[in-house]
Amino acid sequence: MNGMCSVTCTMNNLLLWVILQGSLHTVEGVWPLPQTFTTSTVRYQLKPQSFHFGYRRESAAQRGCSVLDAAFKRYFTLIFPNGTAGNSKLHFSVDEPFTAEISVDHHDCEGYPKEDSSERYNLSVSAGRAFLSAETVWGALRGLETFSQLVYQDNVGSFFVNKTDIEDFPQFQYRGILLDTSRHYLPVQAILKTLDAMAYSKFNVFHWHIVDDPSFPYQSRTFPDLSGKGAFHPMTHIYRQSDVRSVISYARMRGIRVLPEFDSPGHTQSWGKGQSDLLTPCFRRGAPLGTFGPVNPALPSTYQFMASLFKEAASVFPDSYVHLGGDEVDLSCWSSNPSIRAFMQKMGFGVDFPKLETFYIEKLVNITSALNKTSVVWQEVFDNSVQHGSLSVVEVWKQGCYLCEVRRVAKAGLRVILASPWYLDLPGPTHNWARYYTVWPLAFKGTEEQKRLVIGGEVCLWGEYVDATNLAPRLWPRASAAAERLWSDEKQTSSVDRAFPRLQDFRCRLLRRGIPAEPLDVGHCRHEYQGV
Amino acid sequence: MNGMCSVTCTMNNLLLWVILQGSLHTVEGVWPLPQTFTTSTVRYQLKPQSFHFGYRRESAAQRGCSVLDAAFKRYFTLIFPNGTAGNSKLHFSVDEPFTAEISVDHHDCEGYPKEDSSERYNLSVSAGRAFLSAETVWGALRGLETFSQLVYQDNVGSFFVNKTDIEDFPQFQYRGILLDTSRHYLPVQAILKTLDAMAYSKFNVFHWHIVDDPSFPYQSRTFPDLSGKGAFHPMTHIYRQSDVRSVISYARMRGIRVLPEFDSPGHTQSWGKGQSDLLTPCFRRGAPLGTFGPVNPALPSTYQFMASLFKEAASVFPDSYVHLGGDEVDLSCWSSNPSIRAFMQKMGFGVDFPKLETFYIEKLVNITSALNKTSVVWQEVFDNSVQHGSLSVVEVWKQGCYLCEVRRVAKAGLRVILASPWYLDLPGPTHNWARYYTVWPLAFKGTEEQKRLVIGGEVCLWGEYVDATNLAPRLWPRASAAAERLWSDEKQTSSVDRAFPRLQDFRCRLLRRGIPAEPLDVGHCRHEYQGV
Repeated sequence: MNGMCSVTCTMNNLLLWVILQGSLHTVEGVWPLPQTFTTSTVRYQLKPQSFHFGYRRESAAQRGCSVLDAAFKRYFTLIFPNGTAGNSKLHFSVDEPFTAEISVDHHDCEGYPKEDSSERYNLSVSAGRAFLSAETVWGALRGLETFSQLVYQDNVGSFFVNKTDIEDFPQFQYRGILLDTSRHYLPVQAILKTLDAMAYSKFNVFHWHIVDDPSFPYQSRTFPDLSGKGAFHPMTHIYRQSDVRSVISYARMRGIRVLPEFDSPGHTQSWGKGQSDLLTPCFRRGAPLGTFGPVNPALPSTYQFMASLFKEAASVFPDSYVHLGGDEVDLSCWSSNPSIRAFMQKMGFGVDFPKLETFYIEKLVNITSALNKTSVVWQEVFDNSVQHGSLSVVEVWKQGCYLCEVRRVAKAGLRVILASPWYLDLPGPTHNWARYYTVWPLAFKGTEEQKRLVIGGEVCLWGEYVDATNLAPRLWPRASAAAERLWSDEKQTSSVDRAFPRLQDFRCRLLRRGIPAEPLDVGHCRHEYQGV
Repeated sequence: MNGMCSVTCTMNNLLLWVILQGSLHTVEGVWPLPQTFTTSTVRYQLKPQSFHFGYRRESAAQRGCSVLDAAFKRYFTLIFPNGTAGNSKLHFSVDEPFTAEISVDHHDCEGYPKEDSSERYNLSVSAGRAFLSAETVWGALRGLETFSQLVYQDNVGSFFVNKTDIEDFPQFQYRGILLDTSRHYLPVQAILKTLDAMAYSKFNVFHWHIVDDPSFPYQSRTFPDLSGKGAFHPMTHIYRQSDVRSVISYARMRGIRVLPEFDSPGHTQSWGKGQSDLLTPCFRRGAPLGTFGPVNPALPSTYQFMASLFKEAASVFPDSYVHLGGDEVDLSCWSSNPSIRAFMQKMGFGVDFPKLETFYIEKLVNITSALNKTSVVWQEVFDNSVQHGSLSVVEVWKQGCYLCEVRRVAKAGLRVILASPWYLDLPGPTHNWARYYTVWPLAFKGTEEQKRLVIGGEVCLWGEYVDATNLAPRLWPRASAAAERLWSDEKQTSSVDRAFPRLQDFRCRLLRRGIPAEPLDVGHCRHEYQGV
């Protein structure tokens, strides 16, 4: 019988398949899940030739608003991907126009997203129109992303959106991704593509761990030798000022803050190549070894250098935060160095090297405070210091009982960013997205006030084994699992099983948008990744 | 001082860097390592405008030889990547021509690489010429790959090759990579790109695990319903006859055999959708459950179907091998089915279900033997059978003491392919390439004759968590570690530490050639991956 199957038979199978697939459409495939979401089976067809974005009359932002004008263009293409106009021309009806109308309360079109920027939006889709209102353009961007995810194609390629009402806002104000451009250099294009994907998951902070031991790719105006001698290559493996501006501008257009990290006093081997006398010479039996340890905290020149560097960074990076690092300081080199020991005596620190570390970081916090920047530090800085008066924001990264640490920091009245459970670069069962989804940063005993101090979380993609070759599939869609925990209502997103089909759907959407997000399990996407 | 650094200063740094980097050049960065390799510091400059490939007069193959003509074009571009003509135009000297002359003993230009095809070649590079001789065009392809890897660029972009003499041949005749196109569909382009990268590492067998439980993407001429109903999508997620021909042809041009696997009697859920009465209905308490188990071995129609399918496969796939699978058969469904049990009684098998499995596979081996094909099976088929008379090649895949199994199979006089230690899809410390490098398939007690039966090894990239988004960085360069074990002399390649810089070098070469091979450790390549 099978040998006899003709073209008609294949066509029949195809028709049957089309009918079966039709019922599989999820119209609520928004990731991360909005806070309130009312949808209906009533659907409206969208056609590229009769679809328009527009500003409502009452909107504070109007045509010419750089952020929203650009977003309309971007989302038009995302909603109607190239070459997928469908069979709309086969319908001989007059095209009903569909307008997505935006209104925002504040004209913050030329500014930058800030720590306390509202990302709240309301979205209402009805016949012939969608109405999106937000307090800020950043909220409007989140709403546009949601709207784009509401649109789907049926099996003959027509676009639809269902009647929907959404009120939405993020659970946490800080939703970050850390990229490490020191252990491997990431071409600017790889960073920009990550920013695209971040916007699709509503991440709002790009934590740029820009320099570290292996290389110093940031080309400083003040200290060009830092990259000239400390980068992997002084011409091809650096971020020029223009590159940094591109990244910041690209991020701004997507409502993403760029938080630069100049990690010290440890993790600074590459700094020493272009800045003599900055690092501590290590000694053995009274003689210098020729190797260097952390930044030398005993020299006044160190703080002059740091003041200049952070002054430059403060002008280059508009965000109100700057990350000072402070993790994993190797104390043995400090302790071997006679002048450091002498300095310790003079300062009355004895042999308490963590005190020296605290002294150093406090000097840096004061430098950045004077530049009107809020400093973020890794958890050791908090752990080492007895008084936390100068600290503001602490990032918790160590494994183990990380919520114990979150609680300690919050109890001390400091703001917390949680990174520990989202170290996506770590080797391990790479496909296990659920482990990143079942994290809840507030699952500790504490007061409401303490919990409010947990400002968010961050996915860290350290660079030992990651570069542009594998960054995207290692990050996506696993980072999106974290994104939903940081955006959505915890109670509505506590089930891995219920999230799974929606995440699969979202992952297919990422592929369609050119992001090589790796598969979650056996299966397929209607449009497989074609960027090979 | 640093604030004063001018453009001159940066230029000085650059010059210093160029000088320092110059000493880092490895001129013996060939991967996998040739069997004998004599090189010198004498080097010759190559210029694209005066470089030529040519056939020697005594060569059996001459211009018009499809395999070599195409390879000359390909390797010209690989040797002189686009936009890298260097500064050769700055030299006002007359260009000295450099000719790479090829000679082969046999005119096998229009054939396919075979199980016993020689891949031996000799390569000698001296002033103005390289001489490459081989018994077959497939050997010449291996030599061209080696030659392309001998060429390097200095820091101003000029191309050089050092005086070199190489005699080379593979340690093992079978060096395979398995891709699984059932658990995820791989676009043809992803397969072709894998074939490119395979040729760079001198792999010579593409084991195409083309169908399995989740989907049946092979579009059969005889049984179009198999993909029509069993593929993820009957139009977009299939391999048409023309796709299969493209893959086979692309592989042939690179000296790669295509070994198709139609795995049965287990792993056949997708087959059942397009072929009724093929799978065994499972029963509970005497009533059919509505679910299906392995292929039904009790029905004559099964063997008629298999004979037709393999007859087609034998004509579509030119290789002399065909893989019959035979792994992981779930016996419980067979055992639940009354007609299977009746058949067992009739055949005198009692309740010995492995005997039924052996019976089934023997029938298939006979079918494929009659088609002049050598059948390959997974190790269970060997493990289950008491007499191995009909078996030829056994693929060892289970974890544990895999060399014990290799030994058992070789002792039984059968050929062995080892896959167990090279399951690259497995979750785990993904960056640990050394674990794939330290495998030696012949590290068991056995006679010379038994060891000769170990025809090679295979890297398996199963598809549960792999598709086109992450295939390349998951496979490369870790598969290349296996490739060297299968090609090179074991004694010369027993040190992970000595191999490491050469593998890093090779990985950078892969990036330059557009293969997103993931990083092995902290560091950089002169040309980072740009395909983002």
